Amino acid sequence: MRHFLGVGDVENPKALIDKALQIKKDPFAQAHLGKNKTSGLIFFNASIRTRLSTQRAAQNLGLQTIVMNIDQEGWGLEFEDGAVMNGHKAEHIREAAAVMGQYCEIIGVRAFAKLQDRQADYAETVLRKFQQFAGVPIISLESEIRHPLQSLTDLITIEEWKPKPKPKVVLTWAPHPKALPQAVANSLVEWLHTTDYEWVIAHPEGYALADEFVKGAPTTHDQNAALANADFVYAKNWSSYRQYGQVLHQDPSWTITPAKMQLTNQAKFMHCLPVRRNVIVADAVLDSDASIVVQQAANRVWAAQAVLTEILHQL
Amino acid sequence: MRHFLGVGDVENPKALIDKALQIKKDPFAQAHLGKNKTSGLIFFNASIRTRLSTQRAAQNLGLQTIVMNIDQEGWGLEFEDGAVMNGHKAEHIREAAAVMGQYCEIIGVRAFAKLQDRQADYAETVLRKFQQFAGVPIISLESEIRHPLQSLTDLITIEEWKPKPKPKVVLTWAPHPKALPQAVANSLVEWLHTTDYEWVIAHPEGYALADEFVKGAPTTHDQNAALANADFVYAKNWSSYRQYGQVLHQDPSWTITPAKMQLTNQAKFMHCLPVRRNVIVADAVLDSDASIVVQQAANRVWAAQAVLTEILHQL
Amino acid sequence: MRHFLGVGDVENPKALIDKALQIKKDPFAQAHLGKNKTSGLIFFNASIRTRLSTQRAAQNLGLQTIVMNIDQEGWGLEFEDGAVMNGHKAEHIREAAAVMGQYCEIIGVRAFAKLQDRQADYAETVLRKFQQFAGVPIISLESEIRHPLQSLTDLITIEEWKPKPKPKVVLTWAPHPKALPQAVANSLVEWLHTTDYEWVIAHPEGYALADEFVKGAPTTHDQNAALANADFVYAKNWSSYRQYGQVLHQDPSWTITPAKMQLTNQAKFMHCLPVRRNVIVADAVLDSDASIVVQQAANRVWAAQAVLTEILHQL
Repeated sequence: MRHFLGVGDVENPKALIDKALQIKKDPFAQAHLGKNKTSGLIFFNASIRTRLSTQRAAQNLGLQTIVMNIDQEGWGLEFEDGAVMNGHKAEHIREAAAVMGQYCEIIGVRAFAKLQDRQADYAETVLRKFQQFAGVPIISLESEIRHPLQSLTDLITIEEWKPKPKPKVVLTWAPHPKALPQAVANSLVEWLHTTDYEWVIAHPEGYALADEFVKGAPTTHDQNAALANADFVYAKNWSSYRQYGQVLHQDPSWTITPAKMQLTNQAKFMHCLPVRRNVIVADAVLDSDASIVVQQAANRVWAAQAVLTEILHQL
Repeated sequence: MRHFLGVGDVENPKALIDKALQIKKDPFAQAHLGKNKTSGLIFFNASIRTRLSTQRAAQNLGLQTIVMNIDQEGWGLEFEDGAVMNGHKAEHIREAAAVMGQYCEIIGVRAFAKLQDRQADYAETVLRKFQQFAGVPIISLESEIRHPLQSLTDLITIEEWKPKPKPKVVLTWAPHPKALPQAVANSLVEWLHTTDYEWVIAHPEGYALADEFVKGAPTTHDQNAALANADFVYAKNWSSYRQYGQVLHQDPSWTITPAKMQLTNQAKFMHCLPVRRNVIVADAVLDSDASIVVQQAANRVWAAQAVLTEILHQL
Repeated sequence: MRHFLGVGDVENPKALIDKALQIKKDPFAQAHLGKNKTSGLIFFNASIRTRLSTQRAAQNLGLQTIVMNIDQEGWGLEFEDGAVMNGHKAEHIREAAAVMGQYCEIIGVRAFAKLQDRQADYAETVLRKFQQFAGVPIISLESEIRHPLQSLTDLITIEEWKPKPKPKVVLTWAPHPKALPQAVANSLVEWLHTTDYEWVIAHPEGYALADEFVKGAPTTHDQNAALANADFVYAKNWSSYRQYGQVLHQDPSWTITPAKMQLTNQAKFMHCLPVRRNVIVADAVLDSDASIVVQQAANRVWAAQAVLTEILHQL
């Protein structure tokens, strides 16, 4: 694996999950793998879990980390080829990425969807340009449309907690006051396609994900039906893909409540966090033993460490 | 010692001071104590000394540090239980703290008083919630009402510079243009109660500290009388506790001047910094040999290192 | 070398260039030189290359780094002696620098020209005050009027790429939409004076650099004439020194184009970056083999590492 921008970069997703679980048992077994190497973590957007867990994973490998909030600590970057740069953007991605690649052996980048222009967002411009120009491996810390470190974490967590070999996983839309990207949902779907789980996507009308991710996966508008026999309920909000970036409604009947959890096979509740309490999910679910969101978040370290390990071995 | 939120967490304050002075003599004696461990420093507010000295202390112990300015690099946190989170706060402290505790063996937190609601500030909500939910030791990097790393530093410094076994220490209010928390003063008083020093609090009417901190300690409105025979003059501004958060006046007669210092027993001048020159204290005092504010600030490293050492030993 | 604020601090610039080139061949040869030491990098302004390359250089030497964006993470500093600090600046440089010097063995500082008051900028106040009060070596990460790590990098790069022992170097002004400091140009000129290169400064009328830097160096208003037989074209914008801080015009005939490069001796194109594409220089130049801007930026690590090595050896 050279880059990690999506599941397509991973030769064997199941082997990567196993590696992460192995690392979790013995986090410092390769404490010198990153010696004399530096990872740059470039944030175009806010981050808590990704920021902290990726740094921690790097530290466990003896890999130095330089974190940069590029808009706050640097300046605006131009991504258009041929631009006459007489506006407010001070540097072109061609130089910025190439130079960062001179200072860092690995670069992680986070760049959220702007939700203004679907085509632009779905081109994953920021990460692809880094990939094109940096000359070093790029790790997605969440792109406009994918969050592969999260999805890898999600599968690690399901593997740990699954009550039977082929658990039923429900990815369900839930309401949220703000327009959010489709990245987490797209990415989870992309990774679920590599598993032999029984899984289904539940969402209200108007919230269908892009066909390029769904690829005919089972989908329903009936959340209650989907929850029947579920072993895992993965709640997540996303804004509309069809009416791009819009919040069509915030239907509270899609909130995950104890009554909803009663429909399941004593399912575990998952969410990528941050989660809006009593909007996405009721306190009574999140504070119950059914919730494994903190254990899930903890696995972010092992996902990142597995990916860094793979990339470092290939350098 | 598991947490360090105030002197109440310290079994033997005098022993901790001695440990800090020991560390100062040989800073790298335990350079591997923090191996494979990470401290997260979470700042809700600006910081120079605390930010730098705590990082330096961690480095001296081989402890990795991740610094996060949570409002700038993350998002707003909700602290109310039962909140329906459909506003601008994206994550509840229950998740945020629990997750950070998965990535860091020790968490330091700075959260200033907002000076709007005395009861809320005096509940020390932010740090107490971190303590409740993070599952790992919490170090106060200054709470709404306490600054124990500063107070420990202050006593270390007094021990180093005291001209006699039981020196006289004067904590005196001094004027300032802005409303400041009572944290540094409260905390110093809390720690002075553990000493056998002669000490007194001097402040204008209306600036009495909370009874829960003063606990009957000698207090006067006559600064000049307090300064007589003083070995240490510790100046600090705070806003009113009774008329909560208000600047009642900025009486310049409380500024520490060379004439004021003449009233003392060749006292040393102390302040936690940052200090407003020619408002809190005259240049002529700060630039004289009587001032030990820089030496005092230097001791912040040894205070932090002593606390980290104690906590690491208990992990 | 104790401080590094300009070429005047360097006993033997040529030897420092040679040292940097030696380090580039074997970056980890002194991986323990910085053991148990910490460098503080204090940024008053945005930075990408300097921020990353200096951190990387420190890491290569086993030197810990603490980065601080002082305006965002700390507060405003007062630089005036005798100020009555009852305004918005919370701390005087006398305390701030002295305290930082207690926590860090080396301090790097970046403080751009404000371009309001020429005399103030040319006094290099911020770095000189740090030098005066910190008590430890100060490294310029770009001052109001100099950028010596950049200039050292520039000469390292010229040494690597020069096609003949005494290459011809042209420093040419180029247009830019915003008012920029003279620091990079001043500093390059200051360092070029130590070489035996053939070199010339080209700029439109009104853009003459300060005499204290030019010191009679060959200067022309005829860019095309200057470019004849050039081995290196170093483009850079700066605002007017005479009409201080003003953009007198943005004459596009000074943009470096393929036609301009045709006038040279197959010159290499250099720029300190960030560069405004199609304003300073045409895409067709920047994307050609003539451009060595990325290789130049890569050398920032070796320049910083050479300087840190020198200073660490003297500690």
